[in-house]
Amino acid sequence: MIAVIMAGGSGTRFWPFSRNNRPKQLLKIVGDTSMLQMTVDRLKKINTVQDVFIVTRADLADTIKAEITGVDPENIIIEPSGKNTAPCIGLSALQISKIQSDAVMGVFPADHLIVGHKKFEKAINTAKHIARKKDALVTIGLKPTFPSTGYGYIQIDADSDVDHLDAYTVKVFAEKPHLSLAKKFIASGDFLWNSGIFVWKADTFLNKVEKHMPDLHVQLNKINNKLDKKENFKSIWEAINPESIDYGIMEKSEDVYLIKAEFDWSDLGSWNTVYEYMPKNDAGNAIRGDGVVYDGKNNFIQSDKQLTAIVGLDNIVVVNTDDATLVIPKDRVEDVKDLVEQLKIQKREKLL
Amino acid sequence: MIAVIMAGGSGTRFWPFSRNNRPKQLLKIVGDTSMLQMTVDRLKKINTVQDVFIVTRADLADTIKAEITGVDPENIIIEPSGKNTAPCIGLSALQISKIQSDAVMGVFPADHLIVGHKKFEKAINTAKHIARKKDALVTIGLKPTFPSTGYGYIQIDADSDVDHLDAYTVKVFAEKPHLSLAKKFIASGDFLWNSGIFVWKADTFLNKVEKHMPDLHVQLNKINNKLDKKENFKSIWEAINPESIDYGIMEKSEDVYLIKAEFDWSDLGSWNTVYEYMPKNDAGNAIRGDGVVYDGKNNFIQSDKQLTAIVGLDNIVVVNTDDATLVIPKDRVEDVKDLVEQLKIQKREKLL
Repeated sequence: MIAVIMAGGSGTRFWPFSRNNRPKQLLKIVGDTSMLQMTVDRLKKINTVQDVFIVTRADLADTIKAEITGVDPENIIIEPSGKNTAPCIGLSALQISKIQSDAVMGVFPADHLIVGHKKFEKAINTAKHIARKKDALVTIGLKPTFPSTGYGYIQIDADSDVDHLDAYTVKVFAEKPHLSLAKKFIASGDFLWNSGIFVWKADTFLNKVEKHMPDLHVQLNKINNKLDKKENFKSIWEAINPESIDYGIMEKSEDVYLIKAEFDWSDLGSWNTVYEYMPKNDAGNAIRGDGVVYDGKNNFIQSDKQLTAIVGLDNIVVVNTDDATLVIPKDRVEDVKDLVEQLKIQKREKLL
Repeated sequence: MIAVIMAGGSGTRFWPFSRNNRPKQLLKIVGDTSMLQMTVDRLKKINTVQDVFIVTRADLADTIKAEITGVDPENIIIEPSGKNTAPCIGLSALQISKIQSDAVMGVFPADHLIVGHKKFEKAINTAKHIARKKDALVTIGLKPTFPSTGYGYIQIDADSDVDHLDAYTVKVFAEKPHLSLAKKFIASGDFLWNSGIFVWKADTFLNKVEKHMPDLHVQLNKINNKLDKKENFKSIWEAINPESIDYGIMEKSEDVYLIKAEFDWSDLGSWNTVYEYMPKNDAGNAIRGDGVVYDGKNNFIQSDKQLTAIVGLDNIVVVNTDDATLVIPKDRVEDVKDLVEQLKIQKREKLL
């Protein structure tokens, strides 16, 4: 199997820690290694993974080559611009099928937290087995541990388990639900969290693109010709319509399998989620860097550059970098995006 | 009249903006000038003020000489260490009586806000007149505008007005009251705020020291001898017991007069008080430096070095300096002192 890590994201939810040129996957959000390096290291520990590729934005490629160890610089696939996941994975499938026409490829987000390596490895290897055996699209689903409204869900046919491998046929993909629906999903027992990890043969995937995204298929063929001639494919790429893999392919395909996994997983989608995974003191305060909380509980401080002091406040996130400081309640962290929009309008380029 | 500005304070209530070597009087707390410079400028505009002296801590003298314009470097009186206001004023009175034996001296805090110069000037000149005419201790009292629990009060004999000058004899000095008592003070009409401004002849004051603080009197005489011989008086000074002018002299003296003044006055005792005097936007947010508030009201940001962003919070003070950031609710700002105590215990010397 060849692993492809999608590292082109440009999220603003970790501003001011994350920036355009230093998105979440390049940050040490938890622990002492960047999320991307953690992902590389995790995949290289799986013995069925022959090689690891990274697909990313052009403007991040040099930073990734400089900072990430264990990936051949030639294995950095460059998207001329962000076109969401379907074109990104299509480009990766093209490149991988050139190396090995019947290769199984695994597609992995670059910025998720995964704890429990044996369970992870087992799920990936089962996915690889099913992808080859069934010539199908395979995804990894996580057994939900709480009624999250922040994750997508996938409903399986619970009676369809292939060879008792916890490999099921998929009935439906469901977007982020409201709390009441999320609770029903959990209660039903046949809804799993969508991990965003996919495993399939490169040619299986490209056939699905031909069937469900014919425009993209044509564009990828043109790009393939350019690649063969080692020519620049930017102008073709720029004409591609952005589309997600879930909407463009997964939801439309019939033979999709899901491997039910139980490793501890989080997309670390916000400071609030990161807080959950941080070590905390007796008052529930999580402090990364230099911070002090006086008469306050359940706060989160990220402060590498200077002392951050919170007095008399609970449930606050303070993120302190060398040129910007954010103060926000934990239950409002999603609104960082709106703040960043404001800064864009104000043309505060250096802070973006 | 010779003005003496007491600029030896070392308050921690404006941490992290204020530090040991840069206390409030040296900060641009409101406006573009330091509190001490504002005080100097205010006094020099009074035509009966012949000269301005500053009495301060040894470790602040060089900074004051470098930063404050309009005061002769020879007019900087140095206290070897902080001994509260009674010894400080005693030392100043000694020095001034050497220059002019029957001089009237005015004693002024270095870090108070005063708005309404004509009313201020009138009160000072009346105080000077009474100090000389009655050979008495004179203080300036402010007509209270709200039942403050943060200020000391002075009760006057409302029937005692001297020559219709709003100059009254003092009945009692009252410490910071609880709210219910403060309301009674206001309702009574004969309680005024204690401004901490005093006017008297130097020799009148030194006679009061002899009467009410005999130990200090002896020590000041010894210091006087040292001064005559241009010898160091540090060892005598260090033996002095710290004492406030209010407790040591004012409350014990019988012939104390108060000039009732109506200029707008604040001791700017905390960030909360400073907020009251700051210009604010429509949402009541006061921002000094680079700050943005998204969906929040009545916040205060002090941020010279970097952008400070508050999202989804009301009534918060954020003070951002180049090595420390404080986040505290407006109604808890008094507790900054406790935080600074903690930093002392933790030996965070660079941050103190």
